[in-house]
Formats: sequence, C-alpha cells, structure tokens
Amino acid sequence: MPTQDHSPSKIGDETHKSGKQGSGSPITARGEATRRRILDAAEEVFGEYGYYEASISEITRRAGVAQGTFYIYFRTKREIFAELVEDIGKRLRASMRSATRSIADRTEVERYGFKTFFEFVATHRRIYSVLQEAERVAPEAAHAYYDGLARGYTHRLNEAMDAGTIRSVDAEAIAYALMGIGHFVALRWLVWSQQDDTRPDDMPPLPDSVMDSVLDFIMSGLK
Amino acid sequence: MPTQDHSPSKIGDETHKSGKQGSGSPITARGEATRRRILDAAEEVFGEYGYYEASISEITRRAGVAQGTFYIYFRTKREIFAELVEDIGKRLRASMRSATRSIADRTEVERYGFKTFFEFVATHRRIYSVLQEAERVAPEAAHAYYDGLARGYTHRLNEAMDAGTIRSVDAEAIAYALMGIGHFVALRWLVWSQQDDTRPDDMPPLPDSVMDSVLDFIMSGLK
Repeated sequence: MPTQDHSPSKIGDETHKSGKQGSGSPITARGEATRRRILDAAEEVFGEYGYYEASISEITRRAGVAQGTFYIYFRTKREIFAELVEDIGKRLRASMRSATRSIADRTEVERYGFKTFFEFVATHRRIYSVLQEAERVAPEAAHAYYDGLARGYTHRLNEAMDAGTIRSVDAEAIAYALMGIGHFVALRWLVWSQQDDTRPDDMPPLPDSVMDSVLDFIMSGLK
Repeated sequence: MPTQDHSPSKIGDETHKSGKQGSGSPITARGEATRRRILDAAEEVFGEYGYYEASISEITRRAGVAQGTFYIYFRTKREIFAELVEDIGKRLRASMRSATRSIADRTEVERYGFKTFFEFVATHRRIYSVLQEAERVAPEAAHAYYDGLARGYTHRLNEAMDAGTIRSVDAEAIAYALMGIGHFVALRWLVWSQQDDTRPDDMPPLPDSVMDSVLDFIMSGLK
C-alpha cells in the first residue's frame, strides 16, 4: 500500500513515485519492498552515525542496492530522514493501538500503552536518540511525529472523559504531559544508560518500581 | 567565582584556566567577564545556526573578541557547547530555586517552579531547542544537565514525602516524569509554535487552561 505513505507532511514532489501508485502490480510490491529495505538500512545508519555523519552511500551499501536506486525513492538525505521519522511514528502508533485495542479498563490501557512504548524504544533505542535531531534537521517531520502521537492520545482522553472514567482536563495538555513522561523515562532508563552497549537485544527492562510509580502517578493524576 | 564552573562533567583539561583560579584579582574578574561574553555570544550563535552550522569565528565576532581570545577559554566548538549546556542548566536551576525558596505550600512550589521553568524556556527558546542536539554532540553534558535537574527534584520530592505532603513514590522516576511534562509542554506551546518568529520578547505565554490542567494533573498525581 504505497499510497498510505503519502501524507501531507511529505517533503518534495511525488512525481517519481506516481508510476507505482494504486496499481497493485508485482512491480509495485517489489518497489515497495526495495523502498522498505532502504528505509530499514537508513534506520541503522542514522542510528549509528547520527544525521550529520550518515551517508547515502552507507545506506545503499547496507540495503544492498545501487546508489542510483536510492534516488528512485528519495531525493536527499534530508528527505529519507524525514520519511524515516514519519515511518517510525506510524509503526509506534500502530504498535500502541494494537496493544491496547481490546482493553477496556483505563489503568490497563495506560499500562499496556506505556509498556508497548517502552518496548518500542528498547528495540529502536539508537534511532530514538537520533529522532531528537529531527527537530532541527526536519522540524515539520518532528512536529508531525509528535502531533500524530498527541492526536491519538487526545482522542483517547476525550473518549475517557466522555465515559466518565477520568476527570475533565485540557486533553491536549495532558496528552503532551503523558508523552513527556514516556519520553524522559525512556531516555533515562532505556537510552542513556545503554549508549555504549552495542547489543540491542541485551536491553535491561525498565525497573518495576519505576513503571509502577509512573503508572500510579498518572492514574492518580487522571482520576 | 570561576572555580564554581569546574564540575567533574567538564570536558578537557583545565590547565589553560589554572592561572585564573581562586585569585580574585582584577584579572580574574576581567577574564571571567570575557568568558561570560563569549558564552553569551555562543548561546546566540548556537541558537540561530544549530550546533553544526555555528562557527567559532561568528561567536568571537558577536562577542567582540579576537579569535585567539576564544582559545584562552575554550579549546573547541564542542567544548564551548558542552560548557554552555552546563551553564544553562546552572542558571535554570538557580532561577527555579530562588523562585520557590520561601514557599511552603506544595502546590505553590510546583506552580512557581513550573512557571519559572516556562519563563526560562520562553526567554531562551532558541537555545532550548538546540539543547536537544547536545545528546549526540556532547552526551556527558546533556546527561549532567538533566541529572542536575533531576537531583534537585528528587531531593525536594523526598523532603515532601518525609513531611507527608505527598505520598510515597520512586522519587527519581517521578522527577523524570515531571521534567518530561515540563519539557514537552514547553516544546509544544513555547518553542515549536514560535520557531519562525524572530522576536523573542513577543512570546505568547502558556495558555492558562494548559497550565491549570498540567498543575492539577501533577498535584493529583502526587497527593
């Protein structure tokens, strides 16, 4: 479904992709797989080198494609970085949605939402740290990333207010407050302490006392 | 008092400054004033250009000093950036301490602490946005900055727990949660919305409904 990637926050024109849109032919699927492979390689390379020191040639080398192939999908390093930020935001939101979809209890929704978020950061911690560069490199992508998360959260908070399970608040303010909590707790316990570790799978989980205190604080704050 | 700036998080050796330490002579005071002028210029230049595009020559031009003078105080662009992060952290903590020092009521402490923080960000919003680059450029300075804020907060939360004005929590977890709230609310309402505005004094304040909801959420969370 390549057309799903064409959000208004996308940089540059779309002409070089229009041949692939909405056809569903094998070429589209193959093209989409190549694009995916380049994005995955870009996540690795940006994660290891940071935005400024990452190079397109290293991305194509890791993706196993010719340098010219890169330019079929992306025009610049900045463009693939902005698309990567958008892509990560989408995957994070999808994970959190699917983790909490069938849960009715409000505390459990928050627990599984935060748990999924922390797991996502733990498995993408290098790139999560690089995401902070997005604010200067591609501010529109950074804002769209946070705005997308905030909108989902605001919507859920408004629903909970309507259902009377939380009290009346400025939902957007609390959405950003909750995102800030997740972000800083993740940085402190999952990203910073691990920055010299090269084994992403060896990630220690968030201490239980931290998770419990944070959830308890949030639930009391909302009740 | 130049010796106060010599924290363990400092980068590089200190030999080129040792001539000024602990003397209190007019040369020390003059040297300190020059160092301050260079740091203030660096805040402007990093704020406008970001870390990577800022240059030492632009910093010395704005500070009105010869390029050679820069190297009496700092060895590299990275070093002055790390010291600027440390300096901003100190000034922020000092503002927050002095704003809340004589207040006993817990809600009022939080209110004035957050108010002071938001005012600080509003008047330093360009550099606040650049601070996020510190995590990649000078991670030890970024961690010391957040760690310094967190330690002050953790100390105050522990005191409040001892006094029985808040309930028992993992103080460090809640310290990071509160910092995250401040950070994201500041980004959303004070930094992002103003990024194209060149008049820092024209900053709209945080909407009352945001401040009230956030404080209400925090106080209910802690009680």
